Amino acid sequence: MSGNTFGTLFTVTTFGESHGPAIGCVIDGCPPGMTLSEADIQPELDRRRPGTSRHVTQRQEPDTVEILSGVYEGKTTGTPIALLIRNQDQRSKDYGNILDTFRPGHADYTYWHKYGIRDPRGGGRSSARLTAPVVGAAAIAKKWLFEKYGTTFKGCMSQLGEIAIPFESWEHVPNNPFFAANASIIGRLEEYMDALRKDGDSIGARIDVVAQNVPVGLGEPLYDKLDAEIAYALMGINAVKGVEIGAGFRSVAQKGSEHGDALTPEGFVGNNAGGILGGISTGQDITASIAIKPTSSIRTPRPSIDKNGQPISVETFGRHDPCVGIRATPIAEAMLALVLMDHALRHRAQCGDVKVETPALR
Amino acid sequence: MSGNTFGTLFTVTTFGESHGPAIGCVIDGCPPGMTLSEADIQPELDRRRPGTSRHVTQRQEPDTVEILSGVYEGKTTGTPIALLIRNQDQRSKDYGNILDTFRPGHADYTYWHKYGIRDPRGGGRSSARLTAPVVGAAAIAKKWLFEKYGTTFKGCMSQLGEIAIPFESWEHVPNNPFFAANASIIGRLEEYMDALRKDGDSIGARIDVVAQNVPVGLGEPLYDKLDAEIAYALMGINAVKGVEIGAGFRSVAQKGSEHGDALTPEGFVGNNAGGILGGISTGQDITASIAIKPTSSIRTPRPSIDKNGQPISVETFGRHDPCVGIRATPIAEAMLALVLMDHALRHRAQCGDVKVETPALR
Amino acid sequence: MSGNTFGTLFTVTTFGESHGPAIGCVIDGCPPGMTLSEADIQPELDRRRPGTSRHVTQRQEPDTVEILSGVYEGKTTGTPIALLIRNQDQRSKDYGNILDTFRPGHADYTYWHKYGIRDPRGGGRSSARLTAPVVGAAAIAKKWLFEKYGTTFKGCMSQLGEIAIPFESWEHVPNNPFFAANASIIGRLEEYMDALRKDGDSIGARIDVVAQNVPVGLGEPLYDKLDAEIAYALMGINAVKGVEIGAGFRSVAQKGSEHGDALTPEGFVGNNAGGILGGISTGQDITASIAIKPTSSIRTPRPSIDKNGQPISVETFGRHDPCVGIRATPIAEAMLALVLMDHALRHRAQCGDVKVETPALR
Amino acid sequence: MSGNTFGTLFTVTTFGESHGPAIGCVIDGCPPGMTLSEADIQPELDRRRPGTSRHVTQRQEPDTVEILSGVYEGKTTGTPIALLIRNQDQRSKDYGNILDTFRPGHADYTYWHKYGIRDPRGGGRSSARLTAPVVGAAAIAKKWLFEKYGTTFKGCMSQLGEIAIPFESWEHVPNNPFFAANASIIGRLEEYMDALRKDGDSIGARIDVVAQNVPVGLGEPLYDKLDAEIAYALMGINAVKGVEIGAGFRSVAQKGSEHGDALTPEGFVGNNAGGILGGISTGQDITASIAIKPTSSIRTPRPSIDKNGQPISVETFGRHDPCVGIRATPIAEAMLALVLMDHALRHRAQCGDVKVETPALR
Repeated sequence: MSGNTFGTLFTVTTFGESHGPAIGCVIDGCPPGMTLSEADIQPELDRRRPGTSRHVTQRQEPDTVEILSGVYEGKTTGTPIALLIRNQDQRSKDYGNILDTFRPGHADYTYWHKYGIRDPRGGGRSSARLTAPVVGAAAIAKKWLFEKYGTTFKGCMSQLGEIAIPFESWEHVPNNPFFAANASIIGRLEEYMDALRKDGDSIGARIDVVAQNVPVGLGEPLYDKLDAEIAYALMGINAVKGVEIGAGFRSVAQKGSEHGDALTPEGFVGNNAGGILGGISTGQDITASIAIKPTSSIRTPRPSIDKNGQPISVETFGRHDPCVGIRATPIAEAMLALVLMDHALRHRAQCGDVKVETPALR
Repeated sequence: MSGNTFGTLFTVTTFGESHGPAIGCVIDGCPPGMTLSEADIQPELDRRRPGTSRHVTQRQEPDTVEILSGVYEGKTTGTPIALLIRNQDQRSKDYGNILDTFRPGHADYTYWHKYGIRDPRGGGRSSARLTAPVVGAAAIAKKWLFEKYGTTFKGCMSQLGEIAIPFESWEHVPNNPFFAANASIIGRLEEYMDALRKDGDSIGARIDVVAQNVPVGLGEPLYDKLDAEIAYALMGINAVKGVEIGAGFRSVAQKGSEHGDALTPEGFVGNNAGGILGGISTGQDITASIAIKPTSSIRTPRPSIDKNGQPISVETFGRHDPCVGIRATPIAEAMLALVLMDHALRHRAQCGDVKVETPALR
Repeated sequence: MSGNTFGTLFTVTTFGESHGPAIGCVIDGCPPGMTLSEADIQPELDRRRPGTSRHVTQRQEPDTVEILSGVYEGKTTGTPIALLIRNQDQRSKDYGNILDTFRPGHADYTYWHKYGIRDPRGGGRSSARLTAPVVGAAAIAKKWLFEKYGTTFKGCMSQLGEIAIPFESWEHVPNNPFFAANASIIGRLEEYMDALRKDGDSIGARIDVVAQNVPVGLGEPLYDKLDAEIAYALMGINAVKGVEIGAGFRSVAQKGSEHGDALTPEGFVGNNAGGILGGISTGQDITASIAIKPTSSIRTPRPSIDKNGQPISVETFGRHDPCVGIRATPIAEAMLALVLMDHALRHRAQCGDVKVETPALR
Repeated sequence: MSGNTFGTLFTVTTFGESHGPAIGCVIDGCPPGMTLSEADIQPELDRRRPGTSRHVTQRQEPDTVEILSGVYEGKTTGTPIALLIRNQDQRSKDYGNILDTFRPGHADYTYWHKYGIRDPRGGGRSSARLTAPVVGAAAIAKKWLFEKYGTTFKGCMSQLGEIAIPFESWEHVPNNPFFAANASIIGRLEEYMDALRKDGDSIGARIDVVAQNVPVGLGEPLYDKLDAEIAYALMGINAVKGVEIGAGFRSVAQKGSEHGDALTPEGFVGNNAGGILGGISTGQDITASIAIKPTSSIRTPRPSIDKNGQPISVETFGRHDPCVGIRATPIAEAMLALVLMDHALRHRAQCGDVKVETPALR
């Protein structure tokens, strides 16, 4: 109830701080009998890890994962799966100047007031580094959902600051450091980031994420609706300030005759619903979009206060992502996968296994 | 786990269907010793109830609430508080033509596939009528939060279809059927709705909601962050497709030097954060905004299918809100209040009572 | 989290006080598509209700149940099922003399200190009257378990005060007011109770309960073991002070070579395990036994204190069961049924539907 | 929901298998600001660890604990505390002969049927080795409860097989390998165990456990009553078959005039209640007693079946405790401490901090 467990039936309890000895998680509720090894998890961690381009933090962390439990002779046993990732590139002294001050827009201030104590090294528990164990856990969820239902997850950056990134093809996503589904715009994005870094500033981004081949029937109304849970999962990612499902805020100006996706014997026509009606999956693609705010740790001096309430100027050195949105795509996919996994299990608890019927159009 | 309980320490478990004998809820975890009677709850239900203007459903429901338990000699005892609201104006025969068909954009399709059975009368469990018990429960939360911390809740419609509604003053909100914080635009909104109703169509809306005098420190990172929980609560309201906290999607194009709210000895300057940093309340106003899709039950004929997968045309008669956004303001306030109440209790479980310090600027 | 919800996937949230307007519950997680009406529930309530013999409280309550939701055209829909039972025979004035005092052995003292307020009428929330909604909910669980697995529940009183009641046959149980599985001992039990009542005293009892045709595999180790959950459920019944599974306290003096039930191709030989090994059901009968303390509300004067800490003498008038154990058998069955129902759903969430294999011997 | 998390507000999620690389846990909800290091935890682990006398398993495990998170500069931060214990003395080959068979009285059979797969090395997840992380977590709970309320925990063995162990003094407990509160009986217990070990058999035991200086008001009726939760916690310990609170099964033959503990201005007279009335702590000592069955892994050959249902004879070699009760005392204390810690936090969520009033007599 202190909020460090994600999910209700497929639960992920994480631990660790940015500069502590290790980070990791315990996954409970994984169905037994699935083949699993570190090789299934490491690739997802590698997509998220820092230091892979000049546009992200230069902290060097291999994020090597060790499975401590829950797997016997290469198969899950139904008991908890613990994942351990040792931190290796801490430079805690980099944070000396912010020990007693609060960065504008950062969790420094609120952790201090909530707990009366905070670990300031690299943001402590509030660091985006803590998304690593979740990405690891989600690799297991993705594997199960794919083997069971053929479900797959994709994501891309669709806007960087004021630059919209038109969708061209999913094929481009792994081939650029921005997770952009567009090949021709990469040069412009790189120039933009280089200028920003030079200025010591940061920028926001928009990420789109999609789940395909989702069984119909997932979601637990009234309160644990699938869209409500996705909103919870995505808004909970560091720096997210907005979440849309399907047509999102475009719905405001739509008429009912336009918004409601017509049904035909071949499937739905259109997907304003984003694959969810009444909080339950329709079988169409689930589509969501998130707004990520600019990093609060910037070199540009900002007015702030210290612990005694005295005015000061804060500049942040150390290693930071100038756009946390750049590494957010695999994280958003991970959170979506965890929600679907959890609801797949919840569904079969009450209703038995889902029956995959004629697939809905997208 | 079937999703009909909202909250973790201040829990609201609702029951009922649109056309069943009654709707209601059980509230568990209310602190003992607070004065409480139906008179504290009924006014909030009256703000939400149908039939109060020509722009909403004409179903006549007094929504009279009865407290069945948890109160002794006018005070809460710490035991569960059950609220009962009898349904009085069911006209189930109005729904005869949709028994075997699926309205485009409606939960008909998904409930049928999830459960293999659905109560089609007035939308059954998926009806917006089920927001009444939650609004009743939230009246109790609002009372406790106000008495304990002085916290208050406000909301208004900020856009109806393509018509933006400029904010003028909270004073206007109770004086028009749209919950608009603007007096001069009401005539235009009424004309717009009259034309829409004549066309047999529906429209979306945007609602803003604010909590003031919120103690600093509420929210349970990493996963039950206050913003994540608000997103969950608001996205779970019928017809919501998007949620923003603070600057929301505007954050995408903001730089860090612009977005991060500076701190001064007198409080924060600006509120792009929407009152939440690192998933924990800052003490500033909490601000959120939601997108509400147009009602799916419209008179305009739409292509769809029946239970056998055969193509048909669906027209919905019966009584429906042509814009569910019109009555959504008190519901959005209610959900926000329930989240804050729950987190107030969660905070003091781990950290003891919050200390209200120098209030942050808004 | 305030403890008024039982179960995790098949949840029962109860409300009400002994002398309030009504008692009831909301059942969430019931699988859809099961035929259900009040006629399935009322007989279980009738087994438990007061006033049916001179050996129990003379309060006259028909305990008529009304289903408020979750059933459509005679079938469960998967949405919450609310049960309502109106209280009809309150005589609150009977409790005038105990408003400001604490009965020895009663919850009076602790409710007062925990909440700072208590409803003293008939024990308020702590009354055994609150077992009625749970018995109602369990009728639904029993029906589902029987239809799905053939599971049945039986119980009997095996000791009244110092009188052991030898087991003869389950057939006797419904034919005497004590739920004794023995016909010849009834006269002696009646004389014993008549003398006790005349003395204004009360007495303890032991109840045995059995579940038959339980699928193998139910229970969630390490902490939600089936026996742990049964202990929780049974110890939570009013007045219970001890719980045994299988051989129970006899295990203390057993050797491993004696206690461990041998396995043969035809099934287990013996059932010291009580049908549970490692916290998981074996497929054998699940057997449990509980100790019920004597009623604390007795006419015999007892030394106590009042709210101001001053010494007084307490005598309890009003209507009370001189042996709460007499009506406890259907309640113990109900709690056992709720545990098994919950774990049946939990099992299939993680592992899929149980496979009923060759039944184990008992 | 797969049952590997203990508690609701002070949660302990464990992981690991007897012969895997490591065991451990994540503790969430610990209040911030308490001084904590491995030195606070290790002594409790040392009380429980194997290999300390000839009467317990000879597996040599130092059970050295490492804190991975949640502590900064020697103080808890309110974030999750992860404990890691590396396994060091696995001899998995010892279990070769039981890979495909089921030991009578052991979890082998049920794990296999529940999950379709099991880790047979040393009992896998069902091993009593998994009590180590819980004992570690409870050391933290004990420290907080002591600093906050002065609460202390004690336990002792009160019966070994047929040998009752009269209580003399708590001082004796740490001075013998049986946790007996009696000095003169030790020789007899040692002879008894030596003979038993020679016979290749095992034996049951009874353990008593007490919490002192418990604040009044802990426990959440109706279902999460303090005694119900203690029963759940204690019955969940490996090999436990019975639980008593206070007078326990003696209550069956008691009259109300005898059982109910009288109240005086100086406190309660007697403690048949075991410190709990109506599911809420009275402020008296909380007393509980458990029955522990004999170890199922014995050298004596037993009839059983293999995975194919064929009859075989099973003898267990490897290293096993001939009486699991011998090491159970610190485990029982630990579970009791975790329950009280959890309920201390739950109480203050709803009711604010407990007020320690005039202590009740014991």
